[in-house]
Amino acid sequence: MNFIHLIDYTGTFAFAISGIRLASAKKFDWFGAYVVGLVTAIGGGTLRDLLLDVTPFWMLQPSYLIVTALALVFVILLGKLVIRLNNTFFIFDAIGLGLFVVVGIEKSLAAGFPFWVAILMGMITGSAGGIIRDIFINEEPLIFRKDIYALSCLLGGVVFYICTKMYFAPFIIQIVSAVSVIIARILAVKYHISLPILRGHEDETPSKIL
Amino acid sequence: MNFIHLIDYTGTFAFAISGIRLASAKKFDWFGAYVVGLVTAIGGGTLRDLLLDVTPFWMLQPSYLIVTALALVFVILLGKLVIRLNNTFFIFDAIGLGLFVVVGIEKSLAAGFPFWVAILMGMITGSAGGIIRDIFINEEPLIFRKDIYALSCLLGGVVFYICTKMYFAPFIIQIVSAVSVIIARILAVKYHISLPILRGHEDETPSKIL
Amino acid sequence: MNFIHLIDYTGTFAFAISGIRLASAKKFDWFGAYVVGLVTAIGGGTLRDLLLDVTPFWMLQPSYLIVTALALVFVILLGKLVIRLNNTFFIFDAIGLGLFVVVGIEKSLAAGFPFWVAILMGMITGSAGGIIRDIFINEEPLIFRKDIYALSCLLGGVVFYICTKMYFAPFIIQIVSAVSVIIARILAVKYHISLPILRGHEDETPSKIL
Repeated sequence: MNFIHLIDYTGTFAFAISGIRLASAKKFDWFGAYVVGLVTAIGGGTLRDLLLDVTPFWMLQPSYLIVTALALVFVILLGKLVIRLNNTFFIFDAIGLGLFVVVGIEKSLAAGFPFWVAILMGMITGSAGGIIRDIFINEEPLIFRKDIYALSCLLGGVVFYICTKMYFAPFIIQIVSAVSVIIARILAVKYHISLPILRGHEDETPSKIL
Repeated sequence: MNFIHLIDYTGTFAFAISGIRLASAKKFDWFGAYVVGLVTAIGGGTLRDLLLDVTPFWMLQPSYLIVTALALVFVILLGKLVIRLNNTFFIFDAIGLGLFVVVGIEKSLAAGFPFWVAILMGMITGSAGGIIRDIFINEEPLIFRKDIYALSCLLGGVVFYICTKMYFAPFIIQIVSAVSVIIARILAVKYHISLPILRGHEDETPSKIL
Repeated sequence: MNFIHLIDYTGTFAFAISGIRLASAKKFDWFGAYVVGLVTAIGGGTLRDLLLDVTPFWMLQPSYLIVTALALVFVILLGKLVIRLNNTFFIFDAIGLGLFVVVGIEKSLAAGFPFWVAILMGMITGSAGGIIRDIFINEEPLIFRKDIYALSCLLGGVVFYICTKMYFAPFIIQIVSAVSVIIARILAVKYHISLPILRGHEDETPSKIL
């Protein structure tokens, strides 16, 4: 297991923890919590792989299922500690996000897609798991209303593109791109930076529009 | 850009507008509104392409992402105008629906599937985006309760089949099929034609059934 | 039509009935009820086939669409009977579940995946349709909170694996595995066996966690 794997599993663990905690707030049972943790951790990469038409990454080796199981055991045994470690998990989550974006971009480029698709796939890898998580727990996806989560992924993609055009070494490109995601994410949360709300149609309902 | 492209982008624009307006009613931010607009516009075709095992159409050229971005800018800048133009957008939406159904059928036949699959894919192309949109904004899918949206798509598919069996020219088949969708949709909304509600199990809940 | 087909269609029918009844509780129209019944019956197998990258099984022959249509007609014509036959449908549902799990496992092994993926695909085949159904009717997925539905599928997978390692004949493996799912399901419902609820984060919301 090298350094990239370590970060990958750390990010998976942090994503799974966020899903499991939300499932526990809904009084899901252990199995439900495991599934919600799992889709949070692997949902984005799975959607990416389906769109790229490659075998979903977690079907090639069982480690992602195992890491999610460890996250479940962790929450069951050390529930209160998880709440106290909120800031630590946020950092893990941001690091995982940075790596997921880079992995998504590289996998898409390797599959022969142009850069604009790869940047999109980086965003999907980082963001879609949280959207599926919120659909599973029957909440409006948080990502659509708070902080600049997906925009951090977009920034990382643009940085990846610029560094590539400047002929940086692959390792440098990966680091700079991931770090830009992490910093953007931390700054957005710390300073409550968010996008404008779309206003003007407050009382519309589906039946009034269609 | 030929005539078909023009209609395609018009339909995409109208579908995206409907998603963006509903997202604004939920106070989503600009990014959330963009995503909801995008899944409304491309969700049906994406599900179709995943089922057919071909590369999702919007990954082959960025125009659908751009048209959706224009729809977002349009709503941000001209919000009240969108509401006044409700009827105009409904017509665009119906035209887009007609085209989406025809595209879905032709793509499925080209992929070697039988006609009944193609008709189903036409319905999915036209309808699934709206279902995913309603799941994203955490509402019961409107299409399951109002007007004969999906049945208009089914009608277009049957008309396509009959015209094919009568050896009409491809261009005629496309036009007649799309127009039948558009007319069915307009008549259903104008005269409030809808399917019967399924009654008799009003107080059932998942836990009582399973 | 052989014995396996008969069980397959029986399970499809029972799964579709459960979706249609829940749709009727939400006052969906006939089309909406049909779609919810259909996704309940074929959703799990469709997700499995997308993940395995094979053509979704219901696109190869129209019988699953027809069985679902019969289920809709059945509920429309004999609504009250369906409620009286609740226990019968539960048995059908359990039998269908057992078969779906076995089919999911065998299809995954035939596609060249290792056993742990096949067991997971058996669970997805049996469970994912119900999750999609509950998302469509905008409820928290029941499976995450009640009885050991997915664990019954997991048990069937483990039994399948053990029987395979013991060199049982394929037919015996299928029967023993399916029956173990059916018995586990019936016992879980009869004796209200369920997994522990995950506690300790009752007041968490997505915005507090991320």
